[in-house]
Amino acid sequence: MRHAPQSAKSTQVIEWHEGRQRAVLDELAVEEPLEIRVNGQAAGITMRTPGDDFDLAAGFLLTEGIVTGRQDIERIDYGSTPDGQISGNRVDVALVQGVPIDASRLVRVAEATSSCGVCGRRSIDIVHARGLTPPNSTFTIEAARLTDLPVVLRASQRVFGRTGGLHAAALFDREGATIAVCEDIGRHNAVDKVIGRALLSDRLPLSDAVLVVSGRGGFEIVQKALVASIPIVASVSAPSSLAVQLAREFRQTLVGFLRGQRFIVYSGEHRIASSV
Amino acid sequence: MRHAPQSAKSTQVIEWHEGRQRAVLDELAVEEPLEIRVNGQAAGITMRTPGDDFDLAAGFLLTEGIVTGRQDIERIDYGSTPDGQISGNRVDVALVQGVPIDASRLVRVAEATSSCGVCGRRSIDIVHARGLTPPNSTFTIEAARLTDLPVVLRASQRVFGRTGGLHAAALFDREGATIAVCEDIGRHNAVDKVIGRALLSDRLPLSDAVLVVSGRGGFEIVQKALVASIPIVASVSAPSSLAVQLAREFRQTLVGFLRGQRFIVYSGEHRIASSV
Repeated sequence: MRHAPQSAKSTQVIEWHEGRQRAVLDELAVEEPLEIRVNGQAAGITMRTPGDDFDLAAGFLLTEGIVTGRQDIERIDYGSTPDGQISGNRVDVALVQGVPIDASRLVRVAEATSSCGVCGRRSIDIVHARGLTPPNSTFTIEAARLTDLPVVLRASQRVFGRTGGLHAAALFDREGATIAVCEDIGRHNAVDKVIGRALLSDRLPLSDAVLVVSGRGGFEIVQKALVASIPIVASVSAPSSLAVQLAREFRQTLVGFLRGQRFIVYSGEHRIASSV
Repeated sequence: MRHAPQSAKSTQVIEWHEGRQRAVLDELAVEEPLEIRVNGQAAGITMRTPGDDFDLAAGFLLTEGIVTGRQDIERIDYGSTPDGQISGNRVDVALVQGVPIDASRLVRVAEATSSCGVCGRRSIDIVHARGLTPPNSTFTIEAARLTDLPVVLRASQRVFGRTGGLHAAALFDREGATIAVCEDIGRHNAVDKVIGRALLSDRLPLSDAVLVVSGRGGFEIVQKALVASIPIVASVSAPSSLAVQLAREFRQTLVGFLRGQRFIVYSGEHRIASSV
């Protein structure tokens, strides 16, 4: 059974407007740490907005390369403390017996820092070394459909309107129908949540889906999408240089500044079709 | 001597506008990893926008509790590879002889995950355990001065206008004069950069400064500001619940939605003065 943790909190604050102040009630996006354990071993900790925690855990384990799919996961539960209390901030994932845990993946921070000549090139080489392949080259979306997606994303956000503090990620199919929408104070968590939800409902690989994220498209977002075989990633703001480089090497479609009737295609323009 | 790494890159992209496409040149915010070493030991790795790397390293070491001030730092250099090449993505910090390195600080991720009942409360308790104290209670700023700061921040940003992809952080004094402005693809890096610059120019503690950040005010930003004794933190978007809780416990002033003539005070309203 899933808990329903709070994702927004009310608090009294002072609003200043044109030099005058008044006390008002404001809604805050909740930020709390989530610890993810695999077979009892710490796999990661992330500051996140409570909600969709099992999706987040599943997506995190997939995109970090600790599991390869739904079939590796036996069970996901909220953890309990030594005195038997359920902790809403720890998720325990039990892998199916016999699924190997790559201990080196659990200590990837240490691994990343052990390189003497760390560089963007190496970050991309690490992605290549994971054996990821270019996503579905035949999937396309019409330009006019693409420009509709941020509107749908915004409309589906449950918390954004109230707190103004949350990022969102959504998966859409070719027709623009919503597969999943999640929110989080961290953009990478919102992406892990939608991918994890797809994983837990056996919708991987996502080779005919479009990922749309609020804000910026960074290296991590493109990498996570590649792991889930997503052919098109679009953000409403700018991508980073390394995100563009990674998308180009994997012939993934990367779109930025998706606003109104305009967008910029940074990579994989063959997947964008002119509307007739 | 400091290198001048590229913080933006040009690339050819496709712009779609109202169903028509054309090839255009676009500027991308550069994202590259930076490894920070202390006396030869890995202290952290962060994806960042090149530029102000020594400031970033100094600020990171201060806000993570590895150094306590300028006096602990002997030297900061770009690292070299075994074949003698300078790496622009590694910074070596040598501490003054006799300054103890708290090894536990260098493995803080492991420490954070070792807790069985991780929660926001514990994140705040860790801050208390570091011995931080409430910042200067007598520092105030006029409301009208505060509302000017985002305009100045925006005007001082060197890269934002071109790439649209960078966060900014700035330190201002009571009169609204700029102490430091830095940009980065990561908001926490931009904050580490301005704090690090203040540290390296012997301007700590920042007990009469205001920190303004683009975007959202999260837990990490408030925590970093507390370490540098900054009494007022303002963001142009929403703070998180945990950021508000932390600021209130330390009687730090936390302002959000600082836009135009309006802003919201979440904590420490005594530091905001009515303009006469």
